[in-house]
Amino acid sequence: MTELEILGQKAKTASRELAVATTAQKNSALYAIADALLNKKEIILAANREDMQNARDNGMSESLQDRLALTEARIEAMVAGVRQVAALPDPVGEAISMANRPNGLTIAQIRVPLGVIAIIYEARPNVTVDAAVLCLKAGNAVILRGGKEAICANTALTKIMRSALAKSGLPEDSISLVADTSRDSARELMQLRAYIDVLIPRGGAGLIRSVVENAKVPVIETGVGNCHVYIDDSADLEMGAKIVTNAKCSRPSVCNAAETLLVARSVAEDFLPLVLPQLQKYQVALRGDAETKAILGEVVVPATEEDWATEYNDYILAVKVVAGIDEALAHIARYGTLHSEAIITSDYLSSQRFLNEVDAAAVYVNASTRFTDGGEFGLGAEIGISTQKVHARGPMGLRELCSTKFIIYGSGQIR
Amino acid sequence: MTELEILGQKAKTASRELAVATTAQKNSALYAIADALLNKKEIILAANREDMQNARDNGMSESLQDRLALTEARIEAMVAGVRQVAALPDPVGEAISMANRPNGLTIAQIRVPLGVIAIIYEARPNVTVDAAVLCLKAGNAVILRGGKEAICANTALTKIMRSALAKSGLPEDSISLVADTSRDSARELMQLRAYIDVLIPRGGAGLIRSVVENAKVPVIETGVGNCHVYIDDSADLEMGAKIVTNAKCSRPSVCNAAETLLVARSVAEDFLPLVLPQLQKYQVALRGDAETKAILGEVVVPATEEDWATEYNDYILAVKVVAGIDEALAHIARYGTLHSEAIITSDYLSSQRFLNEVDAAAVYVNASTRFTDGGEFGLGAEIGISTQKVHARGPMGLRELCSTKFIIYGSGQIR
Repeated sequence: MTELEILGQKAKTASRELAVATTAQKNSALYAIADALLNKKEIILAANREDMQNARDNGMSESLQDRLALTEARIEAMVAGVRQVAALPDPVGEAISMANRPNGLTIAQIRVPLGVIAIIYEARPNVTVDAAVLCLKAGNAVILRGGKEAICANTALTKIMRSALAKSGLPEDSISLVADTSRDSARELMQLRAYIDVLIPRGGAGLIRSVVENAKVPVIETGVGNCHVYIDDSADLEMGAKIVTNAKCSRPSVCNAAETLLVARSVAEDFLPLVLPQLQKYQVALRGDAETKAILGEVVVPATEEDWATEYNDYILAVKVVAGIDEALAHIARYGTLHSEAIITSDYLSSQRFLNEVDAAAVYVNASTRFTDGGEFGLGAEIGISTQKVHARGPMGLRELCSTKFIIYGSGQIR
Repeated sequence: MTELEILGQKAKTASRELAVATTAQKNSALYAIADALLNKKEIILAANREDMQNARDNGMSESLQDRLALTEARIEAMVAGVRQVAALPDPVGEAISMANRPNGLTIAQIRVPLGVIAIIYEARPNVTVDAAVLCLKAGNAVILRGGKEAICANTALTKIMRSALAKSGLPEDSISLVADTSRDSARELMQLRAYIDVLIPRGGAGLIRSVVENAKVPVIETGVGNCHVYIDDSADLEMGAKIVTNAKCSRPSVCNAAETLLVARSVAEDFLPLVLPQLQKYQVALRGDAETKAILGEVVVPATEEDWATEYNDYILAVKVVAGIDEALAHIARYGTLHSEAIITSDYLSSQRFLNEVDAAAVYVNASTRFTDGGEFGLGAEIGISTQKVHARGPMGLRELCSTKFIIYGSGQIR
């Protein structure tokens, strides 16, 4: 057996024990993890300093360094997150339906853990803790495969969590970290059908593509968001400008940020000059079609075909003037990534058409795409945002980390 | 573009139209399909005769020939099935949740069609109609890839359904059949990410394995069932014998039939001689461990390791005497395929342990595994029985042919 197979087998064994753990046992382990992380923050910070030194030596960009860095405040936020997960309701055992059949069988469909969840992710070390505790709360063992940039902090965090688990009487193999951060380990993980029930990649388009190409275990794709805001003929333009600015600028690096602005021709001459100064406050670079450029002039760089398909994750916005809602819907159907899409309108029929016809995880009328988030949707916390259609779509909370099982109470029934 | 890509693209376009079709439109198309199948039954029977002739020429086994054969009665049953699907509630648009958030957003999670569903299946031509109408009712376009044995009947059935669709105003590309029945077409279908939202293989272990190895589209695995019945120390033995006989013999070719009988040592000497004559009525061949053979003698062929892992789909039953529930649970965890498992017991603690600890789509106390079926579970109809843990588990009805979408009603909210 390879090292990863051994790790997988241990996780599978742990998952069987975890699946029948009570909510009280899981919560007490979570509080023990929170306390241990706080008590050992010096160890975590020291490990992170090592990662940061390597990052500087390797010439990592400032913005990536910022994602990698841990501070006392960031550790405290992590710990607060763990306690919040402990306080969430346990999804395991929840009945989705329960009914008596005519033959006297009682059939219930209940939520059960998925089993072993593998997560492949990139720089940020807080994902190590966030993902582990969400999986644990839903009764799943987790195999973490973080990036090499954060390996020192990830190793320290995992060691602390495993020791807290052991002390609170749950199997320490409920949480494990893949030490090998090479592509080979990621690829092997994607094919470990004997031990992994689902794989969740969290990262950029490159990672997602590699998983889709290579995975033989079930996958939940997350994260790629080429989101649009469409300003309809009847839009409240002031509202539209505020929403576009928020959707683009409040946090451009995340997947629910807007990447393309579509504007109905009838309002383009009024709307574009209105939104321009608000975007300029954030130094947003504009890539526009010819009509946009004709209206706004020099500030607009001509957009290429590639711009419509790009998730910039940056202070850049593509802008296109469209004939109206039909062209907007067609553009979104062609270039959207099924993540989050918004219409700004005061017309009832336009709002209905947009909600019904746009195929995406989250479809908005008169609100910012930035709300696509587990916390904002009231799920408590999220493990990621699914952009696929099977199993889960949109922000995934504890319920989405579960499978189901039919349990049937009989009294001798035969068919 | 390849032929299959063209077909996929047409299906995708049709799926967009179907997704916004009303329930009335879909139902009237379903009734039109039912009428057309009935009116054109001579054409269907003639096509089937051609398949049957080819089957005989190729030396197909009698039992496979029986699965392939269509009769007037079988067509009528097919048509009745279509009308039943028309009468089922439409899952599309159903809200799973809807709530107001503190910031005034109203967020609903509703069911929406998956989009384009591909189904790869084997001999029986009735799957062509069953699968197509279930997908249609849930607003999905379907791409059917049946086996070469049934290609004449499948072609006739699809042509009739497409023409009925066109007459009732829905896109005929909502239902399409892959004409090429070679392995290449199946393999290409498994990788058609641009157009296929989910692939459901329906068939034997070989097909499922090939899909798992080759698929790049999301897959829902179905069907392989190595199901167990465990007779606990406290079992009502008469009830146990009736249930074992039913689970094994009422229809041995299906996936919810029992393949292995586990008997607690304390009751083995009473139970095995009791069940033997009932199984012998159906000429069931027994493959037993040494203890079983010691009790039942000559009629038992010694079981090999392979027997515990085999889905016979035939009048063969593996039998093992176990120490008690712990050994039974361990055996099921090792050899089960997560399909259907039953305990026969009158002990409360045993029933609870079995329900909680067995990891399977359907777990029974004192009832036959044969009930794992969409109709029996009250789902109305099923497209297959999922043995995986993501998206759907157990019998899959119309709801399982749907994805979800968050729709958000705002009034200018930004984050």
